Amino acid sequence: MTHAIGSRRWAIADGYIPSSSASDDPALVSPALVSHESACILNTGDTPATVEITLFFSDREPAGPYRVTVAARRTVHLRFNDLDDPERVPRDTPYASLIESDMPIVVQQTRLDSRQPPHALLSTIAYCQE
Amino acid sequence: MTHAIGSRRWAIADGYIPSSSASDDPALVSPALVSHESACILNTGDTPATVEITLFFSDREPAGPYRVTVAARRTVHLRFNDLDDPERVPRDTPYASLIESDMPIVVQQTRLDSRQPPHALLSTIAYCQE
Amino acid sequence: MTHAIGSRRWAIADGYIPSSSASDDPALVSPALVSHESACILNTGDTPATVEITLFFSDREPAGPYRVTVAARRTVHLRFNDLDDPERVPRDTPYASLIESDMPIVVQQTRLDSRQPPHALLSTIAYCQE
Amino acid sequence: MTHAIGSRRWAIADGYIPSSSASDDPALVSPALVSHESACILNTGDTPATVEITLFFSDREPAGPYRVTVAARRTVHLRFNDLDDPERVPRDTPYASLIESDMPIVVQQTRLDSRQPPHALLSTIAYCQE
Repeated sequence: MTHAIGSRRWAIADGYIPSSSASDDPALVSPALVSHESACILNTGDTPATVEITLFFSDREPAGPYRVTVAARRTVHLRFNDLDDPERVPRDTPYASLIESDMPIVVQQTRLDSRQPPHALLSTIAYCQE
Repeated sequence: MTHAIGSRRWAIADGYIPSSSASDDPALVSPALVSHESACILNTGDTPATVEITLFFSDREPAGPYRVTVAARRTVHLRFNDLDDPERVPRDTPYASLIESDMPIVVQQTRLDSRQPPHALLSTIAYCQE
Repeated sequence: MTHAIGSRRWAIADGYIPSSSASDDPALVSPALVSHESACILNTGDTPATVEITLFFSDREPAGPYRVTVAARRTVHLRFNDLDDPERVPRDTPYASLIESDMPIVVQQTRLDSRQPPHALLSTIAYCQE
Repeated sequence: MTHAIGSRRWAIADGYIPSSSASDDPALVSPALVSHESACILNTGDTPATVEITLFFSDREPAGPYRVTVAARRTVHLRFNDLDDPERVPRDTPYASLIESDMPIVVQQTRLDSRQPPHALLSTIAYCQE
């Protein structure tokens, strides 16, 4: 390919991680079916992308930055559920995210909501702007 | 961050709030699972955003403007269900919305439809144009 | 508002109308819950928009144009199910659509799939290009 | 129409094909309801589009290119499940895709997830950049 595809600044306005899943007994829920929200990040370029994520809330100052590296020619499907440095992402709480990279990336948001079995899905391309 | 991300004019063409939920007994339905539609608005900037929403219908003149303030570095996940000034948003009625701000914002639409349990979800980045 | 928001040329690549619904007994299915696909069109301007829709298929020449008028300051949530001039949209058949207007409009696609109760939803902003 | 609508470079960041379906007995699952993911491609132009797809993963070098032709004035709803040259797309594995064409096309991603009946749907316009 001739050059990496993407943008360096992305935002996702609707963040929300349900606290519960179809079964709250971990032994009964496949990890793939736990309620979760992901930022799927693609780096088609030949240089690793250093990504910083800032989280915004309705009633407090932003949290972050959270740092992630996406290697050259790789994708990372990052679960917001797993972020814990500098702090865990609260459940059942509206949030939003700003995703800034030093290299062009593509970002898509997906949520799997298994509060009631079976699960529901939503996905959208994130908003980007140079 | 160097500057706020976003646009000042957004539109959502598919608005629809189902009138019913999995259970119409409020004692049995978690508020989070009531059928609803949201405009999730992110203001990453250092200045509060004054937002005006105009609603469009198939057979009558537009309603609004509805006014919302999104504070600096905050997100508001606004439920259309809750809008009632200047008038309530009708249920089971196709509508659309124009969202205009004096500062750059990012807008994403999400609907939770719990007419039949379990619920279904849809979400999309809204359309923007300066 | 200062000027109409939107674009004059839109495309939806994933068209598909399931032929069946949760119940195929019309007496038992609310019209709102019949499997359907919509192009939700918003015209925020002060001039009616004349819209032409062309449908594309995998194995035959395009169908159309289908003609729709969206009045000034109105939205039309058009069900592809209802199109029948010049021909009905086939069910269970992949198709795509090109939506061309003489005035700026905004287009969002939504599908309600009730082949298995309860229903599933998908929605996305359509692709636009002047 | 005056000219083909679309872009020549598209990306989908969230690829994922569930390995299971509501019923794993093929005799009981309609092919339409098998868990699958599609890239829906529209070519509104008068020239066939030669499309190359490259798949990206989290822990290995990219796979591809996969080659598809979309004839003039046709749409192809391509199931990633069906790609097998140069190699099959792994199931239950996060991936992403870069879709490059010699002619303008429009790309939309849709996933039907039937791991738990009934199925869930997600769809989004892909990201494009010339």
